[in-house]
Amino acid sequence: MRTVWWEKGKVILINQKKLPEEVVYVECEDYHRVAESIKTLEIRGAPAIGVAAAMALALAVHKSCATSRYALDKELTEAADVIKATRPTARNLFWAVERILRKAESIEGDVSEAVEGIVKEALSMAEEDVVANKNMGTHGATLLEDGDVVGTICNAGRLATAGEYGTALGVIKVAHEQGKKVSVIALETRPVLQGARLTAFELKQDGIDVKVICDGAIGYMFYKGMIDKFICGADRILVTDDCYVINKVGTHTVSIVAKQYDIPFYVAAPLSTFDFQHSLEEAEIEERDSQEVTNIGGRRIVPHGVSVLNPAFDITPPEFVSAIITERGVIRPPFKMNLKNIIS
Amino acid sequence: MRTVWWEKGKVILINQKKLPEEVVYVECEDYHRVAESIKTLEIRGAPAIGVAAAMALALAVHKSCATSRYALDKELTEAADVIKATRPTARNLFWAVERILRKAESIEGDVSEAVEGIVKEALSMAEEDVVANKNMGTHGATLLEDGDVVGTICNAGRLATAGEYGTALGVIKVAHEQGKKVSVIALETRPVLQGARLTAFELKQDGIDVKVICDGAIGYMFYKGMIDKFICGADRILVTDDCYVINKVGTHTVSIVAKQYDIPFYVAAPLSTFDFQHSLEEAEIEERDSQEVTNIGGRRIVPHGVSVLNPAFDITPPEFVSAIITERGVIRPPFKMNLKNIIS
Repeated sequence: MRTVWWEKGKVILINQKKLPEEVVYVECEDYHRVAESIKTLEIRGAPAIGVAAAMALALAVHKSCATSRYALDKELTEAADVIKATRPTARNLFWAVERILRKAESIEGDVSEAVEGIVKEALSMAEEDVVANKNMGTHGATLLEDGDVVGTICNAGRLATAGEYGTALGVIKVAHEQGKKVSVIALETRPVLQGARLTAFELKQDGIDVKVICDGAIGYMFYKGMIDKFICGADRILVTDDCYVINKVGTHTVSIVAKQYDIPFYVAAPLSTFDFQHSLEEAEIEERDSQEVTNIGGRRIVPHGVSVLNPAFDITPPEFVSAIITERGVIRPPFKMNLKNIIS
Repeated sequence: MRTVWWEKGKVILINQKKLPEEVVYVECEDYHRVAESIKTLEIRGAPAIGVAAAMALALAVHKSCATSRYALDKELTEAADVIKATRPTARNLFWAVERILRKAESIEGDVSEAVEGIVKEALSMAEEDVVANKNMGTHGATLLEDGDVVGTICNAGRLATAGEYGTALGVIKVAHEQGKKVSVIALETRPVLQGARLTAFELKQDGIDVKVICDGAIGYMFYKGMIDKFICGADRILVTDDCYVINKVGTHTVSIVAKQYDIPFYVAAPLSTFDFQHSLEEAEIEERDSQEVTNIGGRRIVPHGVSVLNPAFDITPPEFVSAIITERGVIRPPFKMNLKNIIS
């Protein structure tokens, strides 16, 4: 099952805002519509956003009326700017846009050759994502034992990627396929509740036992010995300062409590999530609309006139991370050095 | 402003489920109605539940048609059983019921003398709660400095007590009255959102600056140095094993993260919250209806067929608590010994 795909010159994606009640698809005939989907969280999850960004650029050139390479390249650059402006934090978004732009640069042919090459590149990025996640799952599954109860935050499953496996949930799914009995405790993950809505939905479909808890309950679960390991995804991993993990807000809190109770805390992320350029200082943490916090299900829960803070992500320092699972293997601390070894 | 009070032979309370949109009062002419209010969280907060329990018993005898002390005492015992069955965790509930029963026992007169004595006892318990909380606020305010940003969870304000000050918020309010500029970051406190709905409502009314965050964001706030101190209330403090603090689920998580970042973590609770009888093993953590987690504002957020864990409280070990603020003074570790000193 895919989360976002290319079909007859359209980008089609599952509208994740409607899950779990309804499975509704969004058909995008214009890259602006894809941008809107990314911005409003109809599609979310760092790898999925990356693939959607690539497909949005493919759509931009596919629909273009440009008759010269100059005009086409200009439209592509404009589309790239629109896409990059949707979400500031997810590394994969920028990685995908940069890769498509580099691909375009490398094509020397005419307009139709460029369009064909760009669309092909976007499609292979989706396929690569699926393969990377399956490999990540295989590497990560070595960390799980029969009977493990695994905690997770947000949704780092197939809905957060191009499809099939996902990142953190990919690890759990591969372990499950290998016959290990693993079950999941999913943090509901306020404000947008991706854990309650999406992770629970996916795991139920996959026949993996899952229970949902409120985010605050995680400390008590660790204290009571109810969780053996914790695995999350990542939106950006800042390599410059030795692998600080930017992920859904709440991750930092969990990582500290996990350390207190000696619970292994794993991060699963493809190499496209690693940021080799920016420092901790430069990383932008997206502050989202306060309505995500003040209103739930149409009900106003915060009194009018009271303000909120709504950082969508937080930053987990490397000392709270036991290992990072990638498609090339499991990286243990010191991360920066061991990452170099795995890449080279 | 009172949260629960006695008026012309009725118990009147603010329906906290309707806040902050509407201020609606529940008029109870029967103690079963008070029990229902406690059970359904129309009234909540350990000290408020204690006072409501005492008033429920006062209502039971006030409305009784008993013509003998034997019959009256039997009705009182029945009512006490109904009240004790409403919520298992809040210590103040049991403390209040025991105190009323002891009072009844001590009255040797006829039915009308007994009724009068019991009603009077319930009313003084409400007054004592207000005075205790004001004293607690005065002791606690010595811990706050001008400019402090104080974190808090759930609602430990006047809505959680008989009225006026509250416990954790009482400390903040007294500091504010003393002219110290303090502001608050309130955890929204899933599942029932007492932080977003009630704490924000109270503080706004009091003119104290408050911002609401999702529960998971607390770690990031500490990491970024945005919170100077944290104060919560308590539903039960187990003295036997050196002051384990039972409070709203999420408290344990916050306490660990606070310790990690050297943020003082204070608990404000009157002596009626301390449990000198039960051990850690014996303490019951209320598991509430799963619908509190699965549904918000009429919307189902967890897929059907997926189960949830909904402990309403958690247990914070004493090593994560910097001090306990009581009406008799501030207690530092070792708590059990210093508590003895303050009581004697």
